[in-house]
Amino acid sequence: MPHIKLPEGFAGISSGFVYRPETAKPMRELAHVLLHDSNSLTPAERELIATYVSSQNDCYFCQTSHASAAAAHLGNDWGLTEQVRQNYEQAPVSDKLKALLTIAGKVQQGGKHVTSEDVAKAREQGATDLEIHDTVLIAAAFCMFNRYVDGLATWQPEDPAMYAKMGQHLATEGYLAPSIKA
Amino acid sequence: MPHIKLPEGFAGISSGFVYRPETAKPMRELAHVLLHDSNSLTPAERELIATYVSSQNDCYFCQTSHASAAAAHLGNDWGLTEQVRQNYEQAPVSDKLKALLTIAGKVQQGGKHVTSEDVAKAREQGATDLEIHDTVLIAAAFCMFNRYVDGLATWQPEDPAMYAKMGQHLATEGYLAPSIKA
Repeated sequence: MPHIKLPEGFAGISSGFVYRPETAKPMRELAHVLLHDSNSLTPAERELIATYVSSQNDCYFCQTSHASAAAAHLGNDWGLTEQVRQNYEQAPVSDKLKALLTIAGKVQQGGKHVTSEDVAKAREQGATDLEIHDTVLIAAAFCMFNRYVDGLATWQPEDPAMYAKMGQHLATEGYLAPSIKA
Repeated sequence: MPHIKLPEGFAGISSGFVYRPETAKPMRELAHVLLHDSNSLTPAERELIATYVSSQNDCYFCQTSHASAAAAHLGNDWGLTEQVRQNYEQAPVSDKLKALLTIAGKVQQGGKHVTSEDVAKAREQGATDLEIHDTVLIAAAFCMFNRYVDGLATWQPEDPAMYAKMGQHLATEGYLAPSIKA
Protein backbone atom coordinates (compact mmCIF):
# COMPACT_ATOMS: atom_id res chain seq x y z
CA MET A 1 0.00 0.00 0.00
CA PRO A 2 1.34 3.45 -0.87
CA HIS A 3 2.74 5.51 2.02
CA ILE A 4 0.34 8.39 1.22
CA LYS A 5 -3.14 8.52 -0.29
CA LEU A 6 -2.39 8.45 -4.03
CA PRO A 7 -5.09 8.42 -6.75
CA GLU A 8 -6.25 4.84 -7.31
CA GLY A 9 -5.86 3.00 -10.60
CA PHE A 10 -2.67 4.78 -11.67
CA ALA A 11 0.46 2.64 -11.75
CA GLY A 12 3.92 3.53 -10.44
CA ILE A 13 5.09 7.04 -11.21
CA SER A 14 1.72 7.95 -12.80
CA SER A 15 0.10 7.98 -9.35
CA GLY A 16 2.64 10.57 -8.16
CA PHE A 17 2.19 12.57 -11.35
CA VAL A 18 -1.59 12.72 -10.96
CA TYR A 19 -1.25 13.54 -7.25
CA ARG A 20 1.12 16.48 -7.83
CA PRO A 21 0.79 17.95 -11.35
CA GLU A 22 3.11 20.86 -10.50
CA THR A 23 6.09 18.53 -10.12
CA ALA A 24 4.88 16.10 -12.79
CA LYS A 25 5.22 18.74 -15.51
CA PRO A 26 9.00 19.29 -15.27
CA MET A 27 9.66 15.60 -14.53
CA ARG A 28 7.79 14.59 -17.70
CA GLU A 29 9.60 17.25 -19.71
CA LEU A 30 12.99 16.08 -18.48
CA ALA A 31 12.21 12.45 -19.41
CA HIS A 32 10.94 13.55 -22.82
CA VAL A 33 14.09 15.54 -23.67
CA LEU A 34 16.42 12.82 -22.40
CA LEU A 35 14.68 9.76 -23.84
CA HIS A 36 12.44 10.83 -26.72
CA ASP A 37 13.69 14.02 -28.38
CA SER A 38 16.08 13.85 -31.30
CA ASN A 39 19.57 12.71 -30.22
CA SER A 40 22.64 11.01 -31.69
CA LEU A 41 21.96 8.17 -29.24
CA THR A 42 18.93 6.21 -30.46
CA PRO A 43 15.80 6.11 -28.31
CA ALA A 44 16.46 2.37 -27.78
CA GLU A 45 20.00 3.06 -26.50
CA ARG A 46 18.71 5.70 -24.09
CA GLU A 47 15.88 3.46 -22.88
CA LEU A 48 18.43 0.68 -22.28
CA ILE A 49 20.49 3.06 -20.12
CA ALA A 50 17.34 3.97 -18.17
CA THR A 51 16.43 0.28 -17.83
CA TYR A 52 19.89 -0.70 -16.62
CA VAL A 53 20.06 2.05 -13.99
CA SER A 54 16.53 1.22 -12.80
CA SER A 55 17.50 -2.44 -12.46
CA GLN A 56 20.59 -1.48 -10.44
CA ASN A 57 18.26 0.55 -8.20
CA ASP A 58 15.93 -2.47 -8.00
CA CYS A 59 12.89 -0.46 -9.14
CA TYR A 60 10.45 -2.96 -10.65
CA PHE A 61 8.08 -0.43 -12.21
CA CYS A 62 10.78 1.66 -13.90
CA GLN A 63 12.95 -1.17 -15.16
CA THR A 64 9.92 -3.01 -16.57
CA SER A 65 8.28 -0.01 -18.21
CA HIS A 66 11.54 1.26 -19.75
CA ALA A 67 12.58 -2.24 -20.85
CA SER A 68 9.17 -2.33 -22.56
CA ALA A 69 9.83 1.01 -24.23
CA ALA A 70 13.28 -0.20 -25.36
CA ALA A 71 11.77 -3.45 -26.67
CA ALA A 72 9.13 -1.49 -28.57
CA HIS A 73 11.88 0.52 -30.27
CA LEU A 74 13.74 -2.72 -31.06
CA GLY A 75 10.93 -4.60 -32.77
CA ASN A 76 9.94 -6.27 -29.50
CA ASP A 77 13.40 -7.61 -28.68
CA TRP A 78 12.77 -8.28 -25.00
CA GLY A 79 15.75 -10.64 -24.85
CA LEU A 80 18.19 -7.80 -25.36
CA THR A 81 16.69 -5.75 -22.54
CA GLU A 82 17.15 -8.77 -20.27
CA GLN A 83 20.75 -9.33 -21.42
CA VAL A 84 21.63 -5.69 -20.77
CA ARG A 85 20.22 -5.94 -17.27
CA GLN A 86 21.97 -9.23 -16.50
CA ASN A 87 25.40 -8.60 -18.07
CA TYR A 88 25.71 -5.81 -20.60
CA GLU A 89 29.36 -6.61 -21.30
CA GLN A 90 28.21 -9.84 -22.98
CA ALA A 91 25.13 -8.34 -24.66
CA PRO A 92 25.05 -7.76 -28.45
CA VAL A 93 25.23 -3.97 -28.19
CA SER A 94 27.93 -1.60 -29.49
CA ASP A 95 31.17 -1.06 -27.58
CA LYS A 96 30.17 2.60 -27.34
CA LEU A 97 26.94 1.71 -25.56
CA LYS A 98 28.83 -0.66 -23.25
CA ALA A 99 31.20 2.16 -22.29
CA LEU A 100 28.23 4.48 -21.67
CA LEU A 101 26.50 1.82 -19.56
CA THR A 102 29.68 1.61 -17.46
CA ILE A 103 29.46 5.37 -16.85
CA ALA A 104 25.74 5.08 -16.06
CA GLY A 105 26.44 2.31 -13.55
CA LYS A 106 29.05 4.48 -11.84
CA VAL A 107 26.62 7.41 -11.63
CA GLN A 108 24.06 5.06 -10.05
CA GLN A 109 26.57 4.33 -7.28
CA GLY A 110 27.35 8.04 -6.89
CA GLY A 111 28.64 10.81 -9.15
CA LYS A 112 32.20 10.66 -7.82
CA HIS A 113 32.55 7.04 -8.97
CA VAL A 114 32.88 8.17 -12.60
CA THR A 115 36.58 8.30 -13.54
CA SER A 116 38.48 10.08 -16.31
CA GLU A 117 39.37 6.59 -17.54
CA ASP A 118 35.67 5.64 -17.86
CA VAL A 119 35.11 8.78 -19.92
CA ALA A 120 38.24 8.23 -22.03
CA LYS A 121 37.08 4.69 -22.85
CA ALA A 122 33.70 6.02 -24.00
CA ARG A 123 35.45 8.62 -26.17
CA GLU A 124 37.68 5.92 -27.71
CA GLN A 125 34.48 4.17 -28.79
CA GLY A 126 33.24 7.35 -30.45
CA ALA A 127 31.07 8.86 -27.71
CA THR A 128 30.70 12.63 -27.96
CA ASP A 129 30.66 15.07 -25.06
CA LEU A 130 26.90 15.48 -25.44
CA GLU A 131 26.36 11.72 -25.38
CA ILE A 132 28.47 11.45 -22.21
CA HIS A 133 26.54 14.36 -20.68
CA ASP A 134 23.19 12.80 -21.50
CA THR A 135 24.28 9.40 -20.19
CA VAL A 136 25.29 10.96 -16.87
CA LEU A 137 22.01 12.84 -16.68
CA ILE A 138 19.81 9.89 -17.70
CA ALA A 139 21.47 7.81 -14.97
CA ALA A 140 21.12 10.65 -12.43
CA ALA A 141 17.49 11.28 -13.40
CA PHE A 142 16.60 7.61 -12.95
CA CYS A 143 18.16 7.72 -9.49
CA MET A 144 15.42 10.31 -8.88
CA PHE A 145 12.54 8.58 -10.70
CA ASN A 146 13.33 5.21 -9.07
CA ARG A 147 13.46 6.70 -5.57
CA TYR A 148 10.24 8.63 -6.18
CA VAL A 149 8.39 5.48 -7.28
CA ASP A 150 9.68 3.27 -4.45
CA GLY A 151 9.97 5.97 -1.78
CA LEU A 152 6.19 6.48 -1.99
CA ALA A 153 5.60 2.70 -2.21
CA THR A 154 3.47 3.22 -5.31
CA TRP A 155 1.23 0.48 -6.71
CA GLN A 156 3.28 -1.55 -9.23
CA PRO A 157 1.16 -4.09 -11.11
CA GLU A 158 2.87 -7.21 -12.46
CA ASP A 159 0.85 -7.88 -15.60
CA PRO A 160 3.37 -8.04 -18.50
CA ALA A 161 0.66 -7.06 -21.00
CA MET A 162 0.16 -3.79 -19.15
CA TYR A 163 3.86 -2.96 -19.39
CA ALA A 164 3.99 -3.97 -23.06
CA LYS A 165 1.14 -1.55 -23.79
CA MET A 166 2.79 1.17 -21.72
CA GLY A 167 6.16 0.64 -23.45
CA GLN A 168 4.54 0.88 -26.87
CA HIS A 169 2.80 4.10 -25.86
CA LEU A 170 6.01 5.64 -24.45
CA ALA A 171 8.03 4.61 -27.51
CA THR A 172 5.49 6.22 -29.83
CA GLU A 173 4.29 9.26 -27.91
CA GLY A 174 7.07 10.04 -25.47
CA TYR A 175 6.63 11.35 -21.97
CA LEU A 176 4.45 14.45 -22.18
CA ALA A 177 1.01 12.85 -22.58
CA PRO A 178 -1.25 12.80 -19.49
CA SER A 179 -1.27 9.65 -17.35
CA ILE A 180 -3.97 7.11 -18.07
CA LYS A 181 -5.47 4.54 -15.71
CA ALA A 182 -3.84 1.11 -15.78
CA MET B 1 38.80 19.17 -14.49
CA PRO B 2 35.31 18.42 -15.80
CA HIS B 3 34.88 15.15 -17.70
CA ILE B 4 33.51 17.02 -20.74
CA LYS B 5 34.11 20.50 -22.14
CA LEU B 6 31.72 22.63 -20.06
CA PRO B 7 31.43 26.43 -20.39
CA GLU B 8 34.11 28.09 -18.27
CA GLY B 9 33.37 30.38 -15.34
CA PHE B 10 30.11 28.68 -14.34
CA ALA B 11 30.16 26.81 -11.03
CA GLY B 12 28.72 23.38 -10.29
CA ILE B 13 25.34 22.67 -11.79
CA SER B 14 25.31 26.02 -13.63
CA SER B 15 27.95 24.70 -16.02
CA GLY B 16 25.68 21.78 -16.94
CA PHE B 17 22.70 24.11 -17.25
CA VAL B 18 24.51 26.44 -19.65
CA TYR B 19 25.88 23.48 -21.62
CA ARG B 20 22.44 21.87 -22.12
CA PRO B 21 19.59 24.41 -21.84
CA GLU B 22 17.00 21.84 -22.96
CA THR B 23 17.51 19.77 -19.80
CA ALA B 24 18.23 22.82 -17.62
CA LYS B 25 14.71 24.17 -18.12
CA PRO B 26 12.77 21.29 -16.50
CA MET B 27 15.47 20.78 -13.84
CA ARG B 28 15.22 24.45 -12.83
CA GLU B 29 11.43 24.28 -12.81
CA LEU B 30 11.42 21.20 -10.61
CA ALA B 31 13.77 22.83 -8.08
CA HIS B 32 11.66 26.00 -8.12
CA VAL B 33 8.40 24.14 -7.38
CA LEU B 34 9.97 21.97 -4.68
CA LEU B 35 12.06 24.58 -2.89
CA HIS B 36 10.70 28.04 -3.66
CA ASP B 37 6.99 27.97 -4.50
CA SER B 38 4.39 28.38 -1.79
CA ASN B 39 4.23 25.33 0.50
CA SER B 40 3.22 24.44 4.07
CA LEU B 41 6.88 23.55 4.63
CA THR B 42 8.92 26.75 4.84
CA PRO B 43 11.60 27.42 2.23
CA ALA B 44 14.20 27.05 5.02
CA GLU B 45 12.86 23.60 5.97
CA ARG B 46 12.95 22.46 2.35
CA GLU B 47 16.46 23.86 1.82
CA LEU B 48 17.59 22.01 4.96
CA ILE B 49 16.23 18.74 3.52
CA ALA B 50 18.10 19.46 0.26
CA THR B 51 21.26 20.31 2.22
CA TYR B 52 21.08 17.15 4.34
CA VAL B 53 20.57 14.84 1.35
CA SER B 54 23.39 16.56 -0.56
CA SER B 55 25.69 16.10 2.43
CA GLN B 56 24.78 12.39 2.63
CA ASN B 57 25.66 12.19 -1.08
CA ASP B 58 28.93 14.05 -0.34
CA CYS B 59 28.24 16.71 -2.98
CA TYR B 60 30.23 19.79 -1.96
CA PHE B 61 28.65 22.23 -4.40
CA CYS B 62 25.04 21.29 -3.63
CA GLN B 63 25.33 21.02 0.13
CA THR B 64 27.16 24.34 0.34
CA SER B 65 24.89 26.28 -2.00
CA HIS B 66 21.68 24.95 -0.40
CA ALA B 67 23.03 25.44 3.13
CA SER B 68 23.66 29.03 2.01
CA ALA B 69 20.10 29.35 0.73
CA ALA B 70 18.76 27.88 4.01
CA ALA B 71 20.97 30.25 6.01
CA ALA B 72 19.73 33.21 3.96
CA HIS B 73 16.13 32.23 4.81
CA LEU B 74 17.10 31.90 8.49
CA GLY B 75 18.72 35.31 8.98
CA ASN B 76 22.17 33.90 8.19
CA ASP B 77 22.02 31.07 10.73
CA TRP B 78 24.83 28.98 9.28
CA GLY B 79 25.23 27.11 12.57
CA LEU B 80 21.87 25.41 12.12
CA THR B 81 22.70 24.20 8.63
CA GLU B 82 25.87 22.67 10.05
CA GLN B 83 24.02 21.04 12.97
CA VAL B 84 21.45 19.50 10.61
CA ARG B 85 24.22 18.04 8.49
CA GLN B 86 26.17 16.68 11.47
CA ASN B 87 23.32 15.33 13.62
CA TYR B 88 19.81 16.56 12.91
CA GLU B 89 18.33 14.61 15.83
CA GLN B 90 20.15 17.00 18.20
CA ALA B 91 19.54 20.15 16.13
CA PRO B 92 17.04 22.81 17.29
CA VAL B 93 14.47 22.03 14.61
CA SER B 94 10.89 20.77 15.00
CA ASP B 95 10.12 17.10 15.63
CA LYS B 96 8.17 17.17 12.38
CA LEU B 97 11.23 18.27 10.42
CA LYS B 98 13.33 15.62 12.17
CA ALA B 99 10.84 12.94 11.10
CA LEU B 100 10.91 14.27 7.52
CA LEU B 101 14.72 14.32 7.54
CA THR B 102 14.63 10.66 8.56
CA ILE B 103 12.45 9.90 5.52
CA ALA B 104 14.76 11.98 3.29
CA GLY B 105 17.78 10.05 4.58
CA LYS B 106 16.07 6.76 3.77
CA VAL B 107 15.24 7.93 0.24
CA GLN B 108 18.90 8.90 -0.22
CA GLN B 109 19.84 5.27 0.51
CA GLY B 110 17.13 3.99 -1.84
CA GLY B 111 13.36 4.35 -2.09
CA LYS B 112 12.62 0.94 -0.56
CA HIS B 113 14.34 1.96 2.69
CA VAL B 114 11.36 4.17 3.64
CA THR B 115 9.10 2.23 6.02
CA SER B 116 5.45 2.64 7.03
CA GLU B 117 6.80 3.34 10.52
CA ASP B 118 8.92 6.25 9.26
CA VAL B 119 5.83 7.70 7.59
CA ALA B 120 3.63 7.09 10.66
CA LYS B 121 6.15 8.93 12.84
CA ALA B 122 6.08 11.92 10.52
CA ARG B 123 2.27 11.91 10.58
CA GLU B 124 2.29 11.79 14.41
CA GLN B 125 4.32 15.00 14.32
CA GLY B 126 1.73 16.63 12.08
CA ALA B 127 3.19 16.03 8.62
CA THR B 128 0.59 15.99 5.85
CA ASP B 129 0.55 13.67 2.85
CA LEU B 130 1.72 16.50 0.62
CA GLU B 131 4.62 17.31 2.95
CA ILE B 132 5.63 13.63 2.96
CA HIS B 133 5.32 13.53 -0.83
CA ASP B 134 7.45 16.63 -1.26
CA THR B 135 10.06 15.37 1.20
CA VAL B 136 10.41 12.13 -0.77
CA LEU B 137 10.66 14.04 -4.03
CA ILE B 138 13.13 16.66 -2.74
CA ALA B 139 15.36 13.83 -1.50
CA ALA B 140 14.97 11.93 -4.78
CA ALA B 141 15.62 15.07 -6.86
CA PHE B 142 18.82 15.82 -4.97
CA CYS B 143 19.99 12.28 -5.66
CA MET B 144 19.76 13.43 -9.28
CA PHE B 145 21.22 16.94 -8.90
CA ASN B 146 24.14 15.67 -6.77
CA ARG B 147 24.99 12.91 -9.26
CA TYR B 148 24.76 15.33 -12.17
CA VAL B 149 27.16 17.79 -10.51
CA ASP B 150 29.70 15.17 -9.44
CA GLY B 151 29.19 12.73 -12.33
CA LEU B 152 30.41 15.46 -14.72
CA ALA B 153 33.18 16.48 -12.28
CA THR B 154 32.05 20.11 -12.52
CA TRP B 155 34.16 22.99 -11.26
CA GLN B 156 33.23 23.61 -7.60
CA PRO B 157 34.90 26.72 -6.18
CA GLU B 158 35.54 26.87 -2.44
CA ASP B 159 35.16 30.60 -1.75
CA PRO B 160 32.51 30.91 1.03
CA ALA B 161 31.63 34.44 -0.11
CA MET B 162 30.61 33.07 -3.49
CA TYR B 163 28.25 30.57 -1.91
CA ALA B 164 26.83 33.20 0.46
CA LYS B 165 26.00 35.39 -2.54
CA MET B 166 24.53 32.42 -4.41
CA GLY B 167 22.42 31.39 -1.41
CA GLN B 168 21.06 34.90 -1.03
CA HIS B 169 20.16 34.99 -4.71
CA LEU B 170 18.45 31.57 -4.60
CA ALA B 171 16.54 32.46 -1.42
CA THR B 172 15.25 35.66 -2.99
CA GLU B 173 14.75 34.76 -6.64
CA GLY B 174 14.34 31.00 -6.66
CA TYR B 175 15.58 28.67 -9.35
CA LEU B 176 14.30 29.96 -12.67
CA ALA B 177 16.72 32.83 -13.32
CA PRO B 178 19.50 32.23 -15.87
CA SER B 179 22.91 31.13 -14.56
CA ILE B 180 25.49 33.83 -13.99
CA LYS B 181 29.27 33.52 -14.03
CA ALA B 182 30.87 32.85 -10.64
